[in-house]
Amino acid sequence: MSQTYEFQMAMTCEGCAGAAKRVLGKLGDKVTNVETSVENQKVTVTSSMTSDELLAELQKTGKEVKFIGAV
Amino acid sequence: MSQTYEFQMAMTCEGCAGAAKRVLGKLGDKVTNVETSVENQKVTVTSSMTSDELLAELQKTGKEVKFIGAV
Repeated sequence: MSQTYEFQMAMTCEGCAGAAKRVLGKLGDKVTNVETSVENQKVTVTSSMTSDELLAELQKTGKEVKFIGAV
Repeated sequence: MSQTYEFQMAMTCEGCAGAAKRVLGKLGDKVTNVETSVENQKVTVTSSMTSDELLAELQKTGKEVKFIGAV
């Protein structure tokens, strides 16, 4: 059972966006899709994990991250 | 007893460099100085921790990181 969540994340280049992708990529099949937009400062994640768990993972990057909501 | 270490880290903007600083900043007084250079792709850390411990922390950012050596 998976859900899609949106997070606001401070990303100023594609390297920043790549960091978000790689951190979520370490979670294996618990994360089935990740989309990043530097322009909109947004990370969209489809996952079987909770938004709190995903937020904690994204915060490991050292970026400022906020949970926006489920899509 | 602290030591200064150099790491090579893939950083393409100041946001990337800031992520490295913030992740190391969470370690409190175990890290006494951090310098980043996007131009040289280098993070210089003065810490009481081992290079392996610091490498693990820097890898949390989702960036590619390598330990270069003690300074």
